[in-house]
Amino acid sequence: MPVFLDTNAPDFEDAFAALLTAKREDSPDVDDTVAAIIADVRARGDEAVLDYTARFDRLDLTADQLAISASEVDAEIAKVDDTDRAALEQAAERIRAYHARQIPEDARWTDPEGAELGWRWTPVSAAGLYVPGGLASYPSSLLMNAIPAKVAGVSRLAITVPTPDGVINPLVMLAARLSGVDEIYRIGGAQAIAALAYGTETIAPVDKITGPGNAFVAAAKRRVFGRVGIDMIAGPSEILVIADGDNDPDWIALDLMSQAEHDESAQSILITTDETFGREVAAAVEARLETLERRAIAGASWRDFGAIITVRDLAEAAALSNRIAPEHLELCTADPDALSEKITHAGAIFLGQWTPEAIGDYVGGPNHVLPTARSARFSSGLSVMDFVKRTTLAKMTPDALRAIGPAAETLARAESLEAHGLSVTARLRKLNR
Amino acid sequence: MPVFLDTNAPDFEDAFAALLTAKREDSPDVDDTVAAIIADVRARGDEAVLDYTARFDRLDLTADQLAISASEVDAEIAKVDDTDRAALEQAAERIRAYHARQIPEDARWTDPEGAELGWRWTPVSAAGLYVPGGLASYPSSLLMNAIPAKVAGVSRLAITVPTPDGVINPLVMLAARLSGVDEIYRIGGAQAIAALAYGTETIAPVDKITGPGNAFVAAAKRRVFGRVGIDMIAGPSEILVIADGDNDPDWIALDLMSQAEHDESAQSILITTDETFGREVAAAVEARLETLERRAIAGASWRDFGAIITVRDLAEAAALSNRIAPEHLELCTADPDALSEKITHAGAIFLGQWTPEAIGDYVGGPNHVLPTARSARFSSGLSVMDFVKRTTLAKMTPDALRAIGPAAETLARAESLEAHGLSVTARLRKLNR
Repeated sequence: MPVFLDTNAPDFEDAFAALLTAKREDSPDVDDTVAAIIADVRARGDEAVLDYTARFDRLDLTADQLAISASEVDAEIAKVDDTDRAALEQAAERIRAYHARQIPEDARWTDPEGAELGWRWTPVSAAGLYVPGGLASYPSSLLMNAIPAKVAGVSRLAITVPTPDGVINPLVMLAARLSGVDEIYRIGGAQAIAALAYGTETIAPVDKITGPGNAFVAAAKRRVFGRVGIDMIAGPSEILVIADGDNDPDWIALDLMSQAEHDESAQSILITTDETFGREVAAAVEARLETLERRAIAGASWRDFGAIITVRDLAEAAALSNRIAPEHLELCTADPDALSEKITHAGAIFLGQWTPEAIGDYVGGPNHVLPTARSARFSSGLSVMDFVKRTTLAKMTPDALRAIGPAAETLARAESLEAHGLSVTARLRKLNR
Repeated sequence: MPVFLDTNAPDFEDAFAALLTAKREDSPDVDDTVAAIIADVRARGDEAVLDYTARFDRLDLTADQLAISASEVDAEIAKVDDTDRAALEQAAERIRAYHARQIPEDARWTDPEGAELGWRWTPVSAAGLYVPGGLASYPSSLLMNAIPAKVAGVSRLAITVPTPDGVINPLVMLAARLSGVDEIYRIGGAQAIAALAYGTETIAPVDKITGPGNAFVAAAKRRVFGRVGIDMIAGPSEILVIADGDNDPDWIALDLMSQAEHDESAQSILITTDETFGREVAAAVEARLETLERRAIAGASWRDFGAIITVRDLAEAAALSNRIAPEHLELCTADPDALSEKITHAGAIFLGQWTPEAIGDYVGGPNHVLPTARSARFSSGLSVMDFVKRTTLAKMTPDALRAIGPAAETLARAESLEAHGLSVTARLRKLNR
């Protein structure tokens, strides 16, 4: 059973604080192992990557087999049935349409002093995307990472996907094709991250690496950060549902379980204005947990980290939600738009009872790579912005330099940076001659 | 003397590669020390912060003296002379005007299936800004960090600035006042970062920490990353000037020295189409190095990391520049705008001979916190975007769910995430009843 809280209870504040700070994940310390793998890939290149792939994925390859060829991709894609293909195509189209609106605009203007100012956005040249292998190999995650990169204009997009025992996931190949991925390598783990960051004889280095992975992959991404850009290091998934009593308890139960089934460390929380409804949802969860395929995982998550919180009103619900800063937030209330105006920190909001969170995982359009572990207080989900960067522009005229140069001279002197000031002085002297 | 390269030379590629990969900075490994300080501040709060301040800054305080009061700020500001005050005010106004244009727009639209989609930007609630003390205490850097935060709408902006032996920098206090900083604490080092990230009895925790610092501060920022957001970890400064022969060698020499004087690890590079002009600049640098106040620092930087590269034409210059991905790029050519179109990776571009880089450090308007060490390949300078985050929005109607829900069911099944699919199925079943 999850924990039941009530904001009217005298010990609520302590119990809520405990919920906020509960440590859900114990990451194994694999940093030394990962450091050694990265150093080895830097030193021995392809040869090291091939050795690790033989050891960890039980797959003996030669360097020219590291890439999955276009004809192999064709052969795998041919195995996808029409229903799956149509679903993936619809998802790709909708994700592309949403992200196309995120392309940022350049700016250029002349200010009152005559200075031309502005900025320009350019895409990252080469990006690498890590795709987990085996059970956690999700074609939807490939779309969510690769499509924003291609929409941003990344010209070279490489993916690495381990294929333990040589088994390739046909839907992942189709997702790569639909996203416009340029290169696919059948490697994984820290060795794949090292190859993307530093390059090998076969794999050219990239400038930015995104995508989820296990503890080894996460540690490797942290290590290569600075050499390349990385996306966030995602923690276990979370959902917060705010619901009034006018909802189907089974729908809400399924929404809570849709995150709980990801991972025993996932967290599902219901905040409701109706205590009775909260108990009905708890009962509906128990009923569903009798038959769900992933009931062992979902049950453990719900038992250890689930919570049902009764609040006095929706304003209180919003305030608690902002303290949680949830990755996914469902608003199942009569006027979800009005409630959403009160939300200041959340990765993604799903408005109204017809918008289960799972829509956002696949076909809604917005990205499903979202800030976890309360990081929605300061960060955003993956987007086109992760694959572009801004160059600022400034162009002075003689008049503009006359107008603002003296202030630069003054401040340079105040900061004891003489050459800074002299670079302005030399020019002003010529103008004032 | 700097290194002289020529793209016509047979060994150019090797020499240029060596220039690109030269290690300019040996960061001391202070990670264990920093970990201990952070743990101590988490355990003992104010008391630990006060102990470290006594030890490192030779300053005995009580908890209620941690904050610099408004009347102390007033007293310090009164010491600033009118010229310095006017210069700082002009800089603040121009930085504010530039960054105000960066506020991103919300979006909301209805797609052909009837789904309402969009996103909304919200500011970080509380930000902390680290301001170095002593010699490297730059009021301009305070403006460059604090103004974007306030323009973004950060409601609580706290700064920490160490005051060794109790000495406060009046211009830093004025910069804080002009930027709208809400709280000022006279602490520094890893203990300041720990206090901002975790909070103490006196200092409430923040959600995001930005600002430059020494190796201890940088290591502490890395450690608290995840608990709070951080900005980039900046490396030593760099400038690349692309100039044709039609420039004053002394101006270009001063521009090169304006970065070299920052730090012995700074790097200044000139790329020119005119070999003779390159030699004239080198001579002008030597002349300036005889009198510059910071000639020891600037001279060491120029000797160890400076370079003058002769190229065949400007297209080649742009191609080399893109491989360098410089923090600061000056284009001193007849048509700098045309040349800038060929630049794909740079933190900031300064167009034409009337735009010395120093203008951008103080009063141009664009931010002077920029990506170093080739990270302009994948990252941008500090901006309003660093203090806001995006929440994505999705709202389905029954019709929209009918149109796209089946694809979500299919993909959930393909990924073996049953509850995801059932959360859609349950709703579609009601619609199709």
